[in-house]
Amino acid sequence: MELLKNKILTDGTVNNEEVLKVDSFLNHQIEAALLNEIGKEFKRRFADVKVDRILTVEASGIAIAVMAAQYFGNVPVVFAKKQESRNLDADIYRSKVYSFTKDKEYEIMVSKRYISEGENVLIVDDFLAKGGAVLGMTDIINQAGANLVGVGIVIEKSYQDGSQILQEKGIRVESLACIKSLKDKTIRFK
Amino acid sequence: MELLKNKILTDGTVNNEEVLKVDSFLNHQIEAALLNEIGKEFKRRFADVKVDRILTVEASGIAIAVMAAQYFGNVPVVFAKKQESRNLDADIYRSKVYSFTKDKEYEIMVSKRYISEGENVLIVDDFLAKGGAVLGMTDIINQAGANLVGVGIVIEKSYQDGSQILQEKGIRVESLACIKSLKDKTIRFK
Repeated sequence: MELLKNKILTDGTVNNEEVLKVDSFLNHQIEAALLNEIGKEFKRRFADVKVDRILTVEASGIAIAVMAAQYFGNVPVVFAKKQESRNLDADIYRSKVYSFTKDKEYEIMVSKRYISEGENVLIVDDFLAKGGAVLGMTDIINQAGANLVGVGIVIEKSYQDGSQILQEKGIRVESLACIKSLKDKTIRFK
Repeated sequence: MELLKNKILTDGTVNNEEVLKVDSFLNHQIEAALLNEIGKEFKRRFADVKVDRILTVEASGIAIAVMAAQYFGNVPVVFAKKQESRNLDADIYRSKVYSFTKDKEYEIMVSKRYISEGENVLIVDDFLAKGGAVLGMTDIINQAGANLVGVGIVIEKSYQDGSQILQEKGIRVESLACIKSLKDKTIRFK
């Protein structure tokens, strides 16, 4: 997606060879107009599948999911929670996610009421690196007996193995911008 | 806002006299179509002020803010973060928020790059109870030398004092649904 790649080149910053910062438009400050274009592009790429629900994980995935939902006939969005809350149902699906970025394990939770057997679920998220969060969401979809129709990613770090791991499991991944390398603090796309 | 009130009556559940659960459409599962109507209504209520930026706090505020931004000329959204992250700038505004719901204090953080002196800022959030989160965001707006033009709330718990506290400080509050009472597990609007 050229618009997104150009945005990454002009507004993204590379802190070291691992970390690409896009907090000026994607995960701290958010540009609604860009997210609309991202939503349209996800719809274009997944036009051939029926999507009943969009699943993401808090916090950065929420804006992407809800804006994308507008192009999928306003299907319900559900975001997996990372923290217990007294507003959360007692009856929930849980999965453990290991974050390499933060070097710790955390749990993600989705109420059993908001993901149903037989539903076609599209996962969306801002980044795909080693695939931990997506594998956790996939696990929850499996627990629910729902069908994962694909994974829509805004920025894939193709120099990490998340995309490969998912594809080896037969999961369809559509990434709008694939970073090949951040060597010498230079952003190179695949 | 009648559409919202009807939604709260049909889909909201009251757990006790304090907690109204709206996680079927607002803060776990999310209905994009309803959020579009909420965004339109915020624009209608704040049509008389210039809004340069929308500020909210993760996680539940994000979907509301980004959907509303579409009706305010796609102004930038920024969401205050509750957790440190290596992707967050070193140069940030911080404020402490006391959560009565969770009976603990937490910190909210906004990068200094994403809120500027002289900007007109609209705060939006899902709930207003005792006003802790809004007061924290107001503090950050003051630190930045920006102007708070108003606070847009989806659901106000009018039996708590947040709205009164804010209005006594001269802050304009527009709440789309005001709950007078949850007594006997019955939702009564003001």
